[in-house]
Amino acid sequence: KDYPVADFSEYQQVVGDLAPGDRILLQDGVWRDVEFVFTGRGTKAKPITLAAANPGKAIISGRSNLKLAGEYLVVRGLVFKDGYTPSDAVISFRTDKPENPSDYSTIAVNTRLTEVVIDDFSNPDRYETDYWLSVYGKNNRIDHNHFSFKRNKGVTMAVRLDTEHSQENRHVIEYNYFGPRPVLGSNGGETLRIGTSHYSLSDSLTTVAHNYFDHCDGEVEIVSNKSGKNTIKNNVFFESRGTLTLRHGNGNLVEGNAFIGNGVDHTGGIRVINADQVIKNNYLSGLTGSRFGGGLVVMNGVPNSPINRYHQVDNALITGNTLVNVERIIFGAGSDEERSAAPSNSRFVNNTIVNDSKESPFELHDSVKGIDFSGNKVNFAVGDELAGGFEKSNSLNVAAPPLPVTKEQVGVSWYPKYQKSDRFAVAKTVKVKPGTDTLTAAYSELEGAAELVLAEGDYHVAKTILLDKPLIIRGAGQGKTRLTFGRKSLIDLMNGSSVRLQDLSISGARAPDDKANAVIRSDSAPMNKNFALELLGVEVSDLNINKDFDVIKLRKSTFADYVLVSDSSFSNITGSVLKLDSEKDDYGMYNAEYITVKNSQVSNVNGGLMTVYRGGTDESTFGPHVNVDQVTVTKSPAAGAKGNSILLHGVQRAMLQNSRFDNSAPVLVQHTVGGPVIRVKDNDYNHKPLYRVESIVPGMESTFTADNNNFSE
Amino acid sequence: KDYPVADFSEYQQVVGDLAPGDRILLQDGVWRDVEFVFTGRGTKAKPITLAAANPGKAIISGRSNLKLAGEYLVVRGLVFKDGYTPSDAVISFRTDKPENPSDYSTIAVNTRLTEVVIDDFSNPDRYETDYWLSVYGKNNRIDHNHFSFKRNKGVTMAVRLDTEHSQENRHVIEYNYFGPRPVLGSNGGETLRIGTSHYSLSDSLTTVAHNYFDHCDGEVEIVSNKSGKNTIKNNVFFESRGTLTLRHGNGNLVEGNAFIGNGVDHTGGIRVINADQVIKNNYLSGLTGSRFGGGLVVMNGVPNSPINRYHQVDNALITGNTLVNVERIIFGAGSDEERSAAPSNSRFVNNTIVNDSKESPFELHDSVKGIDFSGNKVNFAVGDELAGGFEKSNSLNVAAPPLPVTKEQVGVSWYPKYQKSDRFAVAKTVKVKPGTDTLTAAYSELEGAAELVLAEGDYHVAKTILLDKPLIIRGAGQGKTRLTFGRKSLIDLMNGSSVRLQDLSISGARAPDDKANAVIRSDSAPMNKNFALELLGVEVSDLNINKDFDVIKLRKSTFADYVLVSDSSFSNITGSVLKLDSEKDDYGMYNAEYITVKNSQVSNVNGGLMTVYRGGTDESTFGPHVNVDQVTVTKSPAAGAKGNSILLHGVQRAMLQNSRFDNSAPVLVQHTVGGPVIRVKDNDYNHKPLYRVESIVPGMESTFTADNNNFSE
Ligand SMILES: [Ca+2]
Ligand SMILES: [Ca+2]
Repeated sequence: KDYPVADFSEYQQVVGDLAPGDRILLQDGVWRDVEFVFTGRGTKAKPITLAAANPGKAIISGRSNLKLAGEYLVVRGLVFKDGYTPSDAVISFRTDKPENPSDYSTIAVNTRLTEVVIDDFSNPDRYETDYWLSVYGKNNRIDHNHFSFKRNKGVTMAVRLDTEHSQENRHVIEYNYFGPRPVLGSNGGETLRIGTSHYSLSDSLTTVAHNYFDHCDGEVEIVSNKSGKNTIKNNVFFESRGTLTLRHGNGNLVEGNAFIGNGVDHTGGIRVINADQVIKNNYLSGLTGSRFGGGLVVMNGVPNSPINRYHQVDNALITGNTLVNVERIIFGAGSDEERSAAPSNSRFVNNTIVNDSKESPFELHDSVKGIDFSGNKVNFAVGDELAGGFEKSNSLNVAAPPLPVTKEQVGVSWYPKYQKSDRFAVAKTVKVKPGTDTLTAAYSELEGAAELVLAEGDYHVAKTILLDKPLIIRGAGQGKTRLTFGRKSLIDLMNGSSVRLQDLSISGARAPDDKANAVIRSDSAPMNKNFALELLGVEVSDLNINKDFDVIKLRKSTFADYVLVSDSSFSNITGSVLKLDSEKDDYGMYNAEYITVKNSQVSNVNGGLMTVYRGGTDESTFGPHVNVDQVTVTKSPAAGAKGNSILLHGVQRAMLQNSRFDNSAPVLVQHTVGGPVIRVKDNDYNHKPLYRVESIVPGMESTFTADNNNFSE
Repeated sequence: KDYPVADFSEYQQVVGDLAPGDRILLQDGVWRDVEFVFTGRGTKAKPITLAAANPGKAIISGRSNLKLAGEYLVVRGLVFKDGYTPSDAVISFRTDKPENPSDYSTIAVNTRLTEVVIDDFSNPDRYETDYWLSVYGKNNRIDHNHFSFKRNKGVTMAVRLDTEHSQENRHVIEYNYFGPRPVLGSNGGETLRIGTSHYSLSDSLTTVAHNYFDHCDGEVEIVSNKSGKNTIKNNVFFESRGTLTLRHGNGNLVEGNAFIGNGVDHTGGIRVINADQVIKNNYLSGLTGSRFGGGLVVMNGVPNSPINRYHQVDNALITGNTLVNVERIIFGAGSDEERSAAPSNSRFVNNTIVNDSKESPFELHDSVKGIDFSGNKVNFAVGDELAGGFEKSNSLNVAAPPLPVTKEQVGVSWYPKYQKSDRFAVAKTVKVKPGTDTLTAAYSELEGAAELVLAEGDYHVAKTILLDKPLIIRGAGQGKTRLTFGRKSLIDLMNGSSVRLQDLSISGARAPDDKANAVIRSDSAPMNKNFALELLGVEVSDLNINKDFDVIKLRKSTFADYVLVSDSSFSNITGSVLKLDSEKDDYGMYNAEYITVKNSQVSNVNGGLMTVYRGGTDESTFGPHVNVDQVTVTKSPAAGAKGNSILLHGVQRAMLQNSRFDNSAPVLVQHTVGGPVIRVKDNDYNHKPLYRVESIVPGMESTFTADNNNFSE
């Protein structure tokens, strides 16, 4: 029988008493602040269904979620958007933790979730944790769903094995669209996790097949496999940062997947740990990842490893894989005093590896004696240790095979998938005349992303611009278009905003005599949408009415995809140019992924060019990245003054080059963890030292290098 | 002519072209997001008026403000509430800064603001700065207005003298109701400021008369007089913390005011600095304030003081004042190496001082040779230095005089004034049964403050309670009513909330394995309403699923009026019981005013009993205050471990007494500034040291004392 229901009380009336074959049909409209508990006992032939009467037309929003328990249930066609879950999951395959091993009453088995969309159903606080799917039970099928833009902490889909009810589960996860997962800026940005270290010696027997992972960039692990005997087959990983990681558990099969990096930063492939793993017939192309994030990474283990550390790779079979323009293939990765057990009893056979550069991608970080190499084909020279197992052919060529699954075949047809676009694509250009609050008035008229074009003259902004959309403010040139502002900040970034300032001059001379002013601040409340900040050809001066007056100040739980400063100058400032250090709790969070300053001048800036802080000791993030190129730093802060010209705490990658440091305090590099790559090269300086390096974690490897920096008085 | 206008576009059509005698009448209703610019040139006989058609019925809300320029304008009967100003003032007596000294076109003169209400029109971020009234121009009259509950930073009313247009202004500020100004927790909580140090040698000639200051508790200064020749007369300061401070400027008259403290903490009177001040016929009663916040404080000056420091008191006349039960009258306050100039050429004559205690309130911090004492009457013995000028009479008695103005005479009749009430006065008591989310379900039904009464049994809270009202959760007793929770926190405090937990047990055993969990957190976004937190008879245990799991964690830009823990116990916790240290920017902010823990046990709490942080070096706040009495602290954290059992950074007052510290790390006291009074007495301990004291500011006076603490192994 079909039960059309139009509101939540109708739903509650029918849900208690459903017979096999019954269907609850949610009527079109927005279902706000609803917590569905869907329970029942269907049969294989006659499941019980909860569905949108019209797929995609029942929108679940607000603080809402769905809990399932019973058997032979089907959930179909719902859309979760414009809200977030108040509990620990959007959709949970159980209603409560079961009391004992024989009690299945609170768990869903033989249940299908299909054609469900969860789109940006993200907690507004990016560092509050939840899952979108908490999969318990057995024999559940999750297919043709669409999951995109999870912006807050917590795995998108977690297969959980924490009681016997959910082990050896034989779930099938297939034909799902895992849409973009933006960089989180913390641990907890995995897209799919199967198991946890605690239960990783249990078998899961989960099949993950024909799914499309599209720009899943949350953190270093896209898929974190933490259980045994799973099959991960025929999936596509498209321009996704990170790797499929066989982190815990044995006997998994990784077959027929395609990793298409297209040269995007940090795109990785497969990371192999533990025993009896089979890596077969995968296609990996254009992957730039390094270290644990490389294209193919076979790790070292810890002898007699505790369950949550690294088990030795044993009896691995890596065969029939094709790797094209993969920058790094690493054996013995992570080799150190603790991780001393190199792979054993393993085979690397009949793989084809082609690089346009003709350079070898292999890195051997430990002995490869435990790996049998044979029948592999390459188009470059390999070192002596590998020579026996590789046949080199200069003319070796590989045509790109068809993808195992296409974007069109996954998810649903009636909900749009992600298309790349320019963040600053503006629908509208508006001219703004000089005067007081002409800029704020023009801004308040805008409905979408726009460019405001300012003429020559003086603009005073008496009210902070509360920016909630992408905006370009472009002047007629430095010194020609002059901006002042009368509040603590010129622009506050609200969720959904990004800003480019271009070709203008900004003075702090009319700002109030208050602490912690800034030209641009992120919101004081958490923001879950990442933003971008650009200063192009901007002159900023006289931020000195009070102390700690910064150019850009990012606050807690806010995150920039990038901050770009180019062709700009900064002078007479009591704070910093870039103050990106609000995550001081050492929980592994930080304020910006890519920070670039080039071709710019900085003088008399007491807080220095930048303060970047990424605390914590986990290795879950690729960033922050810093790039300083052709920058002149003068008395910023003055040599001998407290502070640093540049402070990099826990930065994972930095290049400081081709710059001049005159009469300025040193650069301070504080290593925390990971394999940070910090280079200081080709700089001139007239006050010693140019830099200091500290290691927060005693004994940590320092990968700091400095070359060709020239001192002259 | 009268112009009734019903919306903002109608307003804009008529405002440009008004003739003397014209009136714009705002129709009843809510005027949302409107920025009124009201300009015109009326005459003395025929002013131009902007008024509510019906006083109190035109409500201005959202992001709104009002700017005035012209002459003989009248503004009447408007109500600003449910919003805040986007600019630097709610009402400004100028539209822009004038270009030159003869240009009055942007300034309001001879203008009257009357019967206007501004009620809680506060920026949601308590540390964003604005004024409610920015008074420029000359001969303006501000009378019969109602200003209450400014919750964000910035003086409520500022009389500004920054150009000649506004000096010697002869403004009259009278019969206004200055309603409650809650404790701000930072500098910038003054209610009325006249001038700034920069222009303080200019005369203002402002009259402040017959105003009623009701619980104006923002910071140490209620009225900050920073200009010359003002008259402050016949005002009432009712149970207001702080003082009327003659901070800068000479020749001011303070006459006929009543300061009624009723024994409330930190109630003060008059602080005298600079030359030619007359303090006459004031009545001061029941004032508890000390140091710069005392009942009557005559300061020392700095010889040849810069304009922003302390000018010597010279030629002061203090006469005819009556002081009843005023705890401290101080001469030479602030005497130190810098402030070495004692008062000169001054008279303290014919004052009457009566204390029920028969104890002398006088403190002489420097020589009083420059003060002529004569004709004063007291009912207690004074020291030898004062003896000549005082006549003691045991039977001296003073009847309380009528107040110079009553609450009824000020403000408007049609808008309610503040009445004291119990924060936890609950309209409703609801019984809640054991189970999962029975508590959240019961809470979600509540419409106002309530008490939830829990039976014996187990309660699991799977969803964080987002609390936006006062709530009492009362159980059947420790060990009988048992609570667990499944998210990062049990309760998140939103703006407007307060919570009392009573007679129950809370375990963290079912909380997620996540960092920075807490039983109670304040919001991650700024909160402008102060809250209260009480734990009475509560047992908290097993907050140890991950590190940094606190009992109470207060976040940035959130502030508790008080935190009270009594008859409670805490064990096996990886974080702190009270984590009140989110204001680490050293801007002088902090998280709680009064922090009390008594008759409680703390064991195996790695983060210790409390971490309280008040950075910055300004002396604008009375708090934070800490009181620890009869508390047993065991292995919290363990002796030798990192951390402290109690960390007091910049705490202004603390008493740690009658407690036991067993096998615990020491108490750490970090002095920053002010005259902190920290006492550690009558405690037992078995691990040395019991405490360490550090001074952040080199050479600062330490007022730390320790007595009768007993070590035994
Ligand atoms: Ca991770
Ligand atoms: Ca102050």
